[in-house]
Amino acid sequence: MSKGSHTPPLRSLRHKKRKNKPIPLNDLFEALGKGEPSALARAITIVESTKPEDIETAQRLIALCLKVNRTSIRIGITGVPGVGKSTFIETFGSHLTTMGKRVAVLAVDPSSKMGKGSILGDKTRMEALAKNPAAFIRPSPSKDTQGGVTQSTRESILLCETAGFEIILVETVGVGQSETLVHSMVDFFLLLQLAGAGDELQGLKRGIMEMADAVVINKADGNNMAAVQNAITEFRNALHLYPPKANQWSPKVMQCSALYNTGIDALWELIETFMEHTKANGHFERNRQEQQKNWFLQTVERELGLRFFNQPLVQQQLEHYLEQVAANRIAPVAAALELLRLDQTTN
Amino acid sequence: MSKGSHTPPLRSLRHKKRKNKPIPLNDLFEALGKGEPSALARAITIVESTKPEDIETAQRLIALCLKVNRTSIRIGITGVPGVGKSTFIETFGSHLTTMGKRVAVLAVDPSSKMGKGSILGDKTRMEALAKNPAAFIRPSPSKDTQGGVTQSTRESILLCETAGFEIILVETVGVGQSETLVHSMVDFFLLLQLAGAGDELQGLKRGIMEMADAVVINKADGNNMAAVQNAITEFRNALHLYPPKANQWSPKVMQCSALYNTGIDALWELIETFMEHTKANGHFERNRQEQQKNWFLQTVERELGLRFFNQPLVQQQLEHYLEQVAANRIAPVAAALELLRLDQTTN
Repeated sequence: MSKGSHTPPLRSLRHKKRKNKPIPLNDLFEALGKGEPSALARAITIVESTKPEDIETAQRLIALCLKVNRTSIRIGITGVPGVGKSTFIETFGSHLTTMGKRVAVLAVDPSSKMGKGSILGDKTRMEALAKNPAAFIRPSPSKDTQGGVTQSTRESILLCETAGFEIILVETVGVGQSETLVHSMVDFFLLLQLAGAGDELQGLKRGIMEMADAVVINKADGNNMAAVQNAITEFRNALHLYPPKANQWSPKVMQCSALYNTGIDALWELIETFMEHTKANGHFERNRQEQQKNWFLQTVERELGLRFFNQPLVQQQLEHYLEQVAANRIAPVAAALELLRLDQTTN
Repeated sequence: MSKGSHTPPLRSLRHKKRKNKPIPLNDLFEALGKGEPSALARAITIVESTKPEDIETAQRLIALCLKVNRTSIRIGITGVPGVGKSTFIETFGSHLTTMGKRVAVLAVDPSSKMGKGSILGDKTRMEALAKNPAAFIRPSPSKDTQGGVTQSTRESILLCETAGFEIILVETVGVGQSETLVHSMVDFFLLLQLAGAGDELQGLKRGIMEMADAVVINKADGNNMAAVQNAITEFRNALHLYPPKANQWSPKVMQCSALYNTGIDALWELIETFMEHTKANGHFERNRQEQQKNWFLQTVERELGLRFFNQPLVQQQLEHYLEQVAANRIAPVAAALELLRLDQTTN
């Protein structure tokens, strides 16, 4: 490790190719601790990598980061395309940096295809924040598997915290299970909405309302104010229908205009109130512990599944069994047992 | 197999103890095909059993049943204790048998403890139906694992269908994931509710409204009628908030009095309309195929998990890792990889 110390630490990581030689992880970790954006970007690239040597490095880096005791607030932000997520994060993030906070923006985008979803976290959408030295923006990783994306985002959060970012915004778009994934890694979950034609909840994604700690109606400006009031009433009525949340927090409905920077300060006050509330009743700590445990168990289960289903013999037969099962030619349990007999995994 | 044919088929199953000798499965299957209640009860006991020899028998029996082409309607029924599920099933089931249908009642109760939940499907709760020769009532299996219960209930449905029961009622109480499990094995999902103090949805279980194909307000009799009207309005408004279902069916809200047998015929007409609708648009068949495929994949994943987590070495270490992970002393992914290294499973 000391041999690499005469070269710039980050570059040395890239050029070190000797096998079984540990890369100068401590240098990267040190740069990370100083909050160097390039070190953070490099570290995230490592945890996003699927190369075996990077996976090992990532785990050693994460182990070091765990020893750093940083407090942070992790905020999940979701909303359909067009709701103004980029402008919102730009304004909200800038508001926070003005208050002296350091803000990191991460993205979870389970859709691996190019398209609406994959521009999440794009720096060009958040110009001011991208240039802001107190902010760090990381575009969505381009991994194929949902599980992989989640895993690296969870680790990226830890890296950002190690680099001294106190507020982590995790952005997602409503694709597949992405909201549930983001919800499982944040302290506070925010649903951005628009005021519409009086039937705001129609078409709202299943389960999303139940996860929200706050619903914020964006674009509350200009001629839109009457519609916003209606939307607020409708969302309040709807939220009222749900049973109390485990954190004993009644979800709030608010309005803002990210464009004109109104309502943003009130939202931040709400989040501070939420933090006080959940820290006082113990939910904050309990929730983070549960999230850690679930992450651990999910990783075990996912790995078991990957190891099994990635076997060529299993892959060959899977489609066949799915067809047979759908056609009622073999019972699902019998098919499962037959497929499991192909298991060749050992350690 | 032919050797056992001189003894009564069902009794012979019980007394056959010679190892590696197949039990006279064909006799059981034949009796099942004739709709003999004792054969059906015996067959369900086999699929509920966790003994290795029974598991094998069960799979051979299920394989035979798959070849029988029976049409059926599978109806899931849920509602909190006190909503009148037993009386409802008694009245609804009797109505169906009067129409010449044969009705089987199964129960999914994930709570293994004795208590409110575990009396599900108790014959003493449905006296008339229990004595009705066109009806078959099976109490909830007393297995420990949720997965086990689900699996055997799915197979029990098939056994009931093989025995000529055309309508399968799968009853559940709102514990844990039981509604989701039942929803994953039926064609039509019915939520029983009571009219209350004007805030019927408060405290309603998360996600349950989204699964319902019909909400039926029970105990619509006597002085309760005004409250029932309010409940109907409130549920209609709430259902309206959800996005369209995959089956392109708008969930309906109805009322009935199981005690006075009103509204029961209208409910059956609704279910017939639903069947016509989903058979015409292809959803009925597609849904059953998807259910089969999911059952297959879930069985594989559950088995992988069971095989791994049931290893003594893994069990020993699991609690330790959960604690370490919750306390942030080890990263979840690192802990998962360490635990996976203990894997000794081979085939």
